[in-house]
Amino acid sequence: MTLCKVGIVGGTGYTGVELLRFLLVHEHVEVAAVTSRSEKGVRLADYFPSLRGLTDLEFSDPEAGALSDCDIIFFATPHTVAASQVAPLLKAGKRIIDLSADFRLGSKEVWEHWYSVKHPAPELLDQAVYGLPEFNRERIRDAALIACPGCYPTAVLLGLHPLLKGDDFDLQSVIVDAKTGVSGAGRGASVGMLFSETAENFKAYGASGHRHLPEILEHASIASLGRSIGLTFVPHLVPMMRGMETTLYIRSSGRGRSSTPSLESVYELYSDSYRDEPFVDVMPLGSHPETRSVKGTNLCRIGLFRQTEDGPLIVSSVIDNLGKGAAGQAIQNMNILLGLDETSGLLNAPLLPG
Amino acid sequence: MTLCKVGIVGGTGYTGVELLRFLLVHEHVEVAAVTSRSEKGVRLADYFPSLRGLTDLEFSDPEAGALSDCDIIFFATPHTVAASQVAPLLKAGKRIIDLSADFRLGSKEVWEHWYSVKHPAPELLDQAVYGLPEFNRERIRDAALIACPGCYPTAVLLGLHPLLKGDDFDLQSVIVDAKTGVSGAGRGASVGMLFSETAENFKAYGASGHRHLPEILEHASIASLGRSIGLTFVPHLVPMMRGMETTLYIRSSGRGRSSTPSLESVYELYSDSYRDEPFVDVMPLGSHPETRSVKGTNLCRIGLFRQTEDGPLIVSSVIDNLGKGAAGQAIQNMNILLGLDETSGLLNAPLLPG
Amino acid sequence: MTLCKVGIVGGTGYTGVELLRFLLVHEHVEVAAVTSRSEKGVRLADYFPSLRGLTDLEFSDPEAGALSDCDIIFFATPHTVAASQVAPLLKAGKRIIDLSADFRLGSKEVWEHWYSVKHPAPELLDQAVYGLPEFNRERIRDAALIACPGCYPTAVLLGLHPLLKGDDFDLQSVIVDAKTGVSGAGRGASVGMLFSETAENFKAYGASGHRHLPEILEHASIASLGRSIGLTFVPHLVPMMRGMETTLYIRSSGRGRSSTPSLESVYELYSDSYRDEPFVDVMPLGSHPETRSVKGTNLCRIGLFRQTEDGPLIVSSVIDNLGKGAAGQAIQNMNILLGLDETSGLLNAPLLPG
Amino acid sequence: MTLCKVGIVGGTGYTGVELLRFLLVHEHVEVAAVTSRSEKGVRLADYFPSLRGLTDLEFSDPEAGALSDCDIIFFATPHTVAASQVAPLLKAGKRIIDLSADFRLGSKEVWEHWYSVKHPAPELLDQAVYGLPEFNRERIRDAALIACPGCYPTAVLLGLHPLLKGDDFDLQSVIVDAKTGVSGAGRGASVGMLFSETAENFKAYGASGHRHLPEILEHASIASLGRSIGLTFVPHLVPMMRGMETTLYIRSSGRGRSSTPSLESVYELYSDSYRDEPFVDVMPLGSHPETRSVKGTNLCRIGLFRQTEDGPLIVSSVIDNLGKGAAGQAIQNMNILLGLDETSGLLNAPLLPG
Repeated sequence: MTLCKVGIVGGTGYTGVELLRFLLVHEHVEVAAVTSRSEKGVRLADYFPSLRGLTDLEFSDPEAGALSDCDIIFFATPHTVAASQVAPLLKAGKRIIDLSADFRLGSKEVWEHWYSVKHPAPELLDQAVYGLPEFNRERIRDAALIACPGCYPTAVLLGLHPLLKGDDFDLQSVIVDAKTGVSGAGRGASVGMLFSETAENFKAYGASGHRHLPEILEHASIASLGRSIGLTFVPHLVPMMRGMETTLYIRSSGRGRSSTPSLESVYELYSDSYRDEPFVDVMPLGSHPETRSVKGTNLCRIGLFRQTEDGPLIVSSVIDNLGKGAAGQAIQNMNILLGLDETSGLLNAPLLPG
Repeated sequence: MTLCKVGIVGGTGYTGVELLRFLLVHEHVEVAAVTSRSEKGVRLADYFPSLRGLTDLEFSDPEAGALSDCDIIFFATPHTVAASQVAPLLKAGKRIIDLSADFRLGSKEVWEHWYSVKHPAPELLDQAVYGLPEFNRERIRDAALIACPGCYPTAVLLGLHPLLKGDDFDLQSVIVDAKTGVSGAGRGASVGMLFSETAENFKAYGASGHRHLPEILEHASIASLGRSIGLTFVPHLVPMMRGMETTLYIRSSGRGRSSTPSLESVYELYSDSYRDEPFVDVMPLGSHPETRSVKGTNLCRIGLFRQTEDGPLIVSSVIDNLGKGAAGQAIQNMNILLGLDETSGLLNAPLLPG
Repeated sequence: MTLCKVGIVGGTGYTGVELLRFLLVHEHVEVAAVTSRSEKGVRLADYFPSLRGLTDLEFSDPEAGALSDCDIIFFATPHTVAASQVAPLLKAGKRIIDLSADFRLGSKEVWEHWYSVKHPAPELLDQAVYGLPEFNRERIRDAALIACPGCYPTAVLLGLHPLLKGDDFDLQSVIVDAKTGVSGAGRGASVGMLFSETAENFKAYGASGHRHLPEILEHASIASLGRSIGLTFVPHLVPMMRGMETTLYIRSSGRGRSSTPSLESVYELYSDSYRDEPFVDVMPLGSHPETRSVKGTNLCRIGLFRQTEDGPLIVSSVIDNLGKGAAGQAIQNMNILLGLDETSGLLNAPLLPG
Repeated sequence: MTLCKVGIVGGTGYTGVELLRFLLVHEHVEVAAVTSRSEKGVRLADYFPSLRGLTDLEFSDPEAGALSDCDIIFFATPHTVAASQVAPLLKAGKRIIDLSADFRLGSKEVWEHWYSVKHPAPELLDQAVYGLPEFNRERIRDAALIACPGCYPTAVLLGLHPLLKGDDFDLQSVIVDAKTGVSGAGRGASVGMLFSETAENFKAYGASGHRHLPEILEHASIASLGRSIGLTFVPHLVPMMRGMETTLYIRSSGRGRSSTPSLESVYELYSDSYRDEPFVDVMPLGSHPETRSVKGTNLCRIGLFRQTEDGPLIVSSVIDNLGKGAAGQAIQNMNILLGLDETSGLLNAPLLPG
């Protein structure tokens, strides 16, 4: 079998090197180019010593046409970069998997409100497919431009999905208390993400409003056939590198067959919904998912709880923000695009301890 | 001025050594005895090398009457120990500050339900005063037996207090998403609290129900003049030693003067409520409290947020679980008992970084 | 190709679960049995949720003959367990890979001195092959009983190896300053390894003498053709889960061709010695190896330094104490035993960050 | 008693805020000014929320004469800043306590070699007194310009001091294996000190030569009455915020009365040397000092070991790099300057856990 050639734009950040970790040992692809303006000519293994022995590739100049040989191109760049660069690549027949925020929202206006900058390619928004396979698998298969979901939206949407089509729960007043490891802030130099500023500390941030909120609302609404969704979303910063947990509190609507669906019936609903999903694990009732049990993987694990008969449903979902929340999910999308087994290259076990 | 003699029962755990850290340099007290069955005869500074140079005391045999000289006795013991031992001490005129759960609830039945053991001294439950000075300062002054609040109840009750007497918020459906550092689990050997089990990991626990819930409900209800309170409480474990954050989500009741009180008016309410409290800090609107800013202190800092005009009020409150959540609060209670300045020995600044 | 059936005795500790992480996805083996006295009948994936989806196996009763189907049996047990149990297994033709300390030393007397207990099977000491492939590859191929090296000895011996046959360095006064992550202490409940006792802390331990010292001395001496070795070895505990670094300080002997071999010539010596070794990476001069660059892998990375022309040679070597220091090395030994590619199942890239 | 007015130049870094933590509650001083070019006009408590409630001060413009009221001025600035600014302040009769490297070396040439920049005030080098009270107490008393030692030199010099005047040990071949927490790198934004780059990682750095080496050599030599000292110094980075441990390996010279002084006699020597030192604690033989036992304090704790009768003496010394290694020591110097009890404001107990 010939290998599919893939390229990565922006290989010096955490999602870039995580893509490399998966792709360099993926049996169906060859990493043909990794671009970086600032590091062109530097060997990847000199920049990331963890890659010594795994690749002889150098970072390429993004201007130099290094991507022209690639069939699939990943963008692991800050927002606006992909939107500025993908048009000619799409025209040349490349398929694009964008890990940035550029194509996650359908509306130029909403996007520009939350990202405070003009969108470089609003005409492509319609064309982009939201790359959450559990929502959109069929559309991904034939997409030319895939917008990989943000990490928070991935955890929240997978935690909500089985409820979105039904009528039993009040989707107007969902509470999402979310927690992320520090790597979510990226690899840029910043005082706030120094070890000595984040270790042994816990705090909420963005409690007045966070960019991932409109993304969650839009795709939850699409999945619920257009109903409007009301959601309060408060992210918190956890002193760990990787991992994300979201705790969802969802009240019964009172409109279901029973006024409050039993926890057992909710568990059945979730188990059924995700039975065939290779990367979503509904834990047995009573089990608490923990972030380390998905670290380095493309998994999402979900636990379900209720404290009193008429109390809210509690859903705890965990992912690795760089795995299912970024690079792992991008590989899963690539596998679908290429018609490969969706789990190809993604079946590693998490380190424990780790 | 003569020094007040104090004793500590159970000095080998984290609350015990934290009491010692405060008491050994407190200018109005003398630590006269620290008991430990297992370590009797051992020098405190040999057991805790961090205390070398600060004390020559040895752990005493609890049977040996070491406490008879003490005016005030702290219990830093697992539940049931204090309840089994305080009766003769009270009779002898000692004043007791219990940091355990033994006297935090008014009802023997509720206590026995949650702690799964017979209460050793139910006849004392009535006599105990709940040691949360911001709720109960006057009653503490003359108490013989003080039940120091749990760490979670402290953070939650201080976060709710200004709302409890009013009618603007729906106290029937409060959501509390709580997070604690690992030291909350105590200093006993356990696999689950090993470094390699807790580092780089985040998870919910006790999501089906936690012992601190009835304590919060009872004391919130008392403070709200007997109204019943409905609260969902999910604790999480954070990979850090100390610190606790609780995020509260509280809907408007629709019964206030305006259907939804503005965030500014809520801020004023909180500021006014806590104006004279030395250990509660209402942060300016827009600021996120962080646990490191209270580490090692007796402070609680509170931030207030709202995401949409009719969305729930969001309250983030942080304490040090071993400070305001345990030993610091116990010292504050002692200062009140002794008629000292309430901040005596408690005005240290947190380490930063730290 | 038929799969080789392997068994693990003692699967509930960190080396056990790390063996599972490698073996469950190894394309040439089938994990046929994992024994545990305390957990028999429990599903592995219930005990270690990180294994959910990867195996349906249950822990077996060690008495129940579960191992009789296995060709290769790993012991991931505390010392004395393997020595008590391997004799009948060897007689039955099984090949044993022992990760414990039982067969690492040649002398019963030395072993009993350092482990303070009678050796259960001294008659097997002669038969055991020390499982450090870089020293002993040929003897491993045909061994029935392999004694996997300790983690410290692995890091130190690989750091010293190229010097052991030559005469340029003084092997009588080697200084080894060693540092390990917390998982080296195992998964047993202990106060000393609690998160709150080890986080944000650094200390030497065992500075008066450590069990790994005689193991290093014995195998360094064998590799240097019987010369006696003098070595001071001080281990330290690092607040991290995995990873080990040893810094070696080795003076010139004054007996070499030049009184002090140049750093460049030492670099050449190391590069040549390890050219064909798949798991030893000699870093370019000037590079500092870091533990995260080997985390979760079977790699050892080595850096070489000197501060003044006649100062000691400085060697920094890093491994993952659970990888090349335990389970990874055991798999490497298994691959050799089975005649497989030595890197089979061991070519993963480390997580970064991670 | 009137309070001494003190000023801090450069209050936005870790040593600056640590000075504030000590000084704001020091009963004999008043913090009159804290300067910062970038933050002038900002309230300290807005910049460092941990200081809320402790001060109403704002950062001052360094140009605006804010320091003119101060008797003592601390410099907590990068190197060259103090050297550029102290001359007029000294002329105005201010006493300067410099925490930077500017005046730690006696030789302009050596300084310029290691710091790769022209020294701004070489004429002041002679006048500066090295602020290590255990070496230099008498000269500090009357100094106008105090150069506080670096953190590594503090830990190493206190670990060596009792040996420096004697002849029993070989001071030509001392090995120093040093480890520091991350805060030693300061509070500037840098990729290398991000949480995700330093957590769960350990490595040597600067193994070919570090700026603190000439400082150690110079002051060890002065204390040994001018003998030359030979020392290999390898620093390592530990995934923790604060704390520093140095392990020293020192061979016997063979010139002492006994060829190798017994460990007991060395212990007596250290105990005698430090008997009257309030901040140096020689631990009992067999005890291992740990960094957490000095965290947040001005203490240095020392442990002594030997593995074989003729093996090297092993000295493990621990300090808080921001305490005795920086701000604590600066306060100790200030206390000496002012004729106060040397321990004034410095007798806090370390947090445990913490």
